[in-house]
Amino acid sequence: MKTCLKEHLKRCSALRYGSFTLASGAESSYYVDIKRASTYPKVLRRMARELEGRMLDEEIECDRLAGVVLGSIPLVVALSMEVCIPFLMVRKERKSHGTGDAIEGKLEEGYRVVVLEDVITSARSALEAVEFLRENGAIVEHVLTIVDRETGGRELLESNGLNFHAILTAKELLEE
Amino acid sequence: MKTCLKEHLKRCSALRYGSFTLASGAESSYYVDIKRASTYPKVLRRMARELEGRMLDEEIECDRLAGVVLGSIPLVVALSMEVCIPFLMVRKERKSHGTGDAIEGKLEEGYRVVVLEDVITSARSALEAVEFLRENGAIVEHVLTIVDRETGGRELLESNGLNFHAILTAKELLEE
Repeated sequence: MKTCLKEHLKRCSALRYGSFTLASGAESSYYVDIKRASTYPKVLRRMARELEGRMLDEEIECDRLAGVVLGSIPLVVALSMEVCIPFLMVRKERKSHGTGDAIEGKLEEGYRVVVLEDVITSARSALEAVEFLRENGAIVEHVLTIVDRETGGRELLESNGLNFHAILTAKELLEE
Repeated sequence: MKTCLKEHLKRCSALRYGSFTLASGAESSYYVDIKRASTYPKVLRRMARELEGRMLDEEIECDRLAGVVLGSIPLVVALSMEVCIPFLMVRKERKSHGTGDAIEGKLEEGYRVVVLEDVITSARSALEAVEFLRENGAIVEHVLTIVDRETGGRELLESNGLNFHAILTAKELLEE
């Protein structure tokens, strides 16, 4: 399954090998763009099924799935349709109090929410979304991602009381 | 089918009757929030199937579906998965030349693109997306929406060479 997903990512040019400079300025020997891959329904469905499988394997139950705008939205929509759990869309522009327009969808006090990210690098953006959801009453214990770049994200999330699940790691992407 | 979709919209509070003031300042005797309705996978799937049916009935073929960020993205993702056609996400912040980050997904010269909007009021936002896609090589002939508020949108789109298809009209929403 993982090998197959890698092949799909390569075929739609969402996974490439070479020398790349990341937005952070760091160098990388691979390039991965899950948002781009998500625009192909077959690849999106495959990713959603991998996420669904992981939720079943880890016995993760929740009231809402949540994705950060915009990269994770196709994933959260596709997974929502697979598992029939409603979703939330979390915008990056937030005020400190009240959800305002920052969260689309119904969130009530005590809802168990699973946060999805397309790619985890530092995990700061995912952690900000988790903190914002927690401030607004959600119980967040799990973060799921398609790609863990293995650059400190897991450690940051785990040190904040979160279980972190990745479908593919940088090491797996780099294995030929 | 249409009656059933209306019922679904009411059940998730995405369709309400009363006295409402729109963002434009105009008064309305109903409130409809398709973005909110889209966060429920059953309702989303039903809307996607209605759109798919309309595409079949009208013999609409295309290379890409396109949705404007953020309201139409769940619809475009769900329809993409139903009909197995890749999609584009069009951001509202655009530069006048080049797609830059304004369009997510693969768009090539001559691609036939169908534009989706959750709700059409004046249709100005949909028309801007159409014009931007055309500037970037797309052939756009059709705009699809879930709700046509019947406040001039159809006329604006048709006068710009577009075929306009709505699943529900304001009149149909107001019929008891």
